[in-house]
Amino acid sequence: MKSASFQDYMPGNVCFGCGQDNPDGLHIHSRWEGEVAVCNWMPEPKYWGWVNILNGGIMATLIDCHCMGAALAAAYRAENRGLDTEPVYRYATGTLTVKYLKPTPGDQEVELRASIIEQKGRKTTLTCECWSGGVLTATADVVALRVVDSSQAVEGNPFVG
Amino acid sequence: MKSASFQDYMPGNVCFGCGQDNPDGLHIHSRWEGEVAVCNWMPEPKYWGWVNILNGGIMATLIDCHCMGAALAAAYRAENRGLDTEPVYRYATGTLTVKYLKPTPGDQEVELRASIIEQKGRKTTLTCECWSGGVLTATADVVALRVVDSSQAVEGNPFVG
Repeated sequence: MKSASFQDYMPGNVCFGCGQDNPDGLHIHSRWEGEVAVCNWMPEPKYWGWVNILNGGIMATLIDCHCMGAALAAAYRAENRGLDTEPVYRYATGTLTVKYLKPTPGDQEVELRASIIEQKGRKTTLTCECWSGGVLTATADVVALRVVDSSQAVEGNPFVG
Repeated sequence: MKSASFQDYMPGNVCFGCGQDNPDGLHIHSRWEGEVAVCNWMPEPKYWGWVNILNGGIMATLIDCHCMGAALAAAYRAENRGLDTEPVYRYATGTLTVKYLKPTPGDQEVELRASIIEQKGRKTTLTCECWSGGVLTATADVVALRVVDSSQAVEGNPFVG
């Protein structure tokens, strides 16, 4: 049996990268391994950039969504509560920087490893590594912003559909 | 009749973002408007991040591929030759930084506007803006690297499939 991921606690999530409710999406699954948030994902040829090399934009998408999930999970963890508890938080990306170090093979699983650098109010800063076959192929710096907090008024919040 | 885009001169391009030969891709089309490389693209619901908001990773993909096309076109232009001439160049991303300023609507066309900051050898630096309905929703800084040059030996080049 597959263990629960951060994304299992995001009902109604239509996101292309991490939404369980998007039939056409990438459907990433993120989990804690100690202090590191980990995501394993298998490319498909339609997501290549060059023949048998994963598209850099798809890599950015994976990293982005994985880091938003990690920021979310870290916020709940900091409040010592489960992902199925209230208030409900959701994060959106402030800034995403990806450095592409080597081509990422398009026919083998990638592993994303994200770490929390700082949590300060509604802003969380993370780093993320992308590994493929034991090779570090990209690194990223990500700023996540809490844009949904169910304990706060959401009127006019553009992120709530 | 639709005028030619940079991507019309990339035969065999399977890229998810810009490949005409990827049936499942985003199929961006980029062109010059004076000194600015412009791309107009219409979102689909499957590429949303939140309900009716374009996914940030897809935005990164659009920006990335558009800027690679712009770097390519600028290199040919600097050599005063057409995109259908040799040597053939191709660019890959070195670094991509996207700052998300406002939510980007998921139901209206986006316009990407990229400018060349510097061309130095095989490295091209660009900036890119993402506009939607007259609103600037994201800005980006991109470093593009020439990884294919048909006048050079390509043996062992991981980017050539």
